[in-house]
Amino acid sequence: MITPYWTRPEPPYHVAIFTITPSGTDPEGYAAMNERMVALAESQPGYLGRESAVLPDGSDLVVIYYADAESIRSWKQHPEHLVAQQLGRQKWLARYRVEVAHVERAYEFAADSDAAEDRPGPS
Amino acid sequence: MITPYWTRPEPPYHVAIFTITPSGTDPEGYAAMNERMVALAESQPGYLGRESAVLPDGSDLVVIYYADAESIRSWKQHPEHLVAQQLGRQKWLARYRVEVAHVERAYEFAADSDAAEDRPGPS
Repeated sequence: MITPYWTRPEPPYHVAIFTITPSGTDPEGYAAMNERMVALAESQPGYLGRESAVLPDGSDLVVIYYADAESIRSWKQHPEHLVAQQLGRQKWLARYRVEVAHVERAYEFAADSDAAEDRPGPS
Repeated sequence: MITPYWTRPEPPYHVAIFTITPSGTDPEGYAAMNERMVALAESQPGYLGRESAVLPDGSDLVVIYYADAESIRSWKQHPEHLVAQQLGRQKWLARYRVEVAHVERAYEFAADSDAAEDRPGPS
């Protein structure tokens, strides 16, 4: 489930940014694993939303938001996720980078709301 | 210029995540503004790289990495960027959210390197 980005809370919260280059081996298996991992990510406590897109070079960019760093750590250590990471490195993935970051500020704008200004977050 | 994601340094560094929904008005003007803003972002001191993709709903996801929060602040306050933000809100943009985050940890993997393990960053 994609949670609309404008429903995310005010910071602070956390984000995990995945940049993933598939190896091209067994694309069906990779897609199935991806789908399962996304479902698992969404079922973790603290899940706030995500965005997924394909980059021009065919890599996947997945940005997943969590309420805190501990939620990200729990998800990384989930037994099913550990198996997927292992299989991914053996078969499906040519390269990846995961970045865990602390969201400190957010600014937003909506043309159809009263808040039609660049609205800084509280911090 | 897209800098390959695997060339980013070890954390800490900063990231600005833009989720942008165009209004549909003047798409050529929006595209030209986007291109100019990306060039401006890349010319800022501290620029480390970026990823840009289109989300399934047609919104743009742009992730720009900088060495520090000050670089992001300078870019946000660049006179040309301020004009673009103003015009964007008046014409090109239905909605956006910008999140500024501190990258605390990174993990990476490359199948073709010796480091064929999930390698945690230094922090």
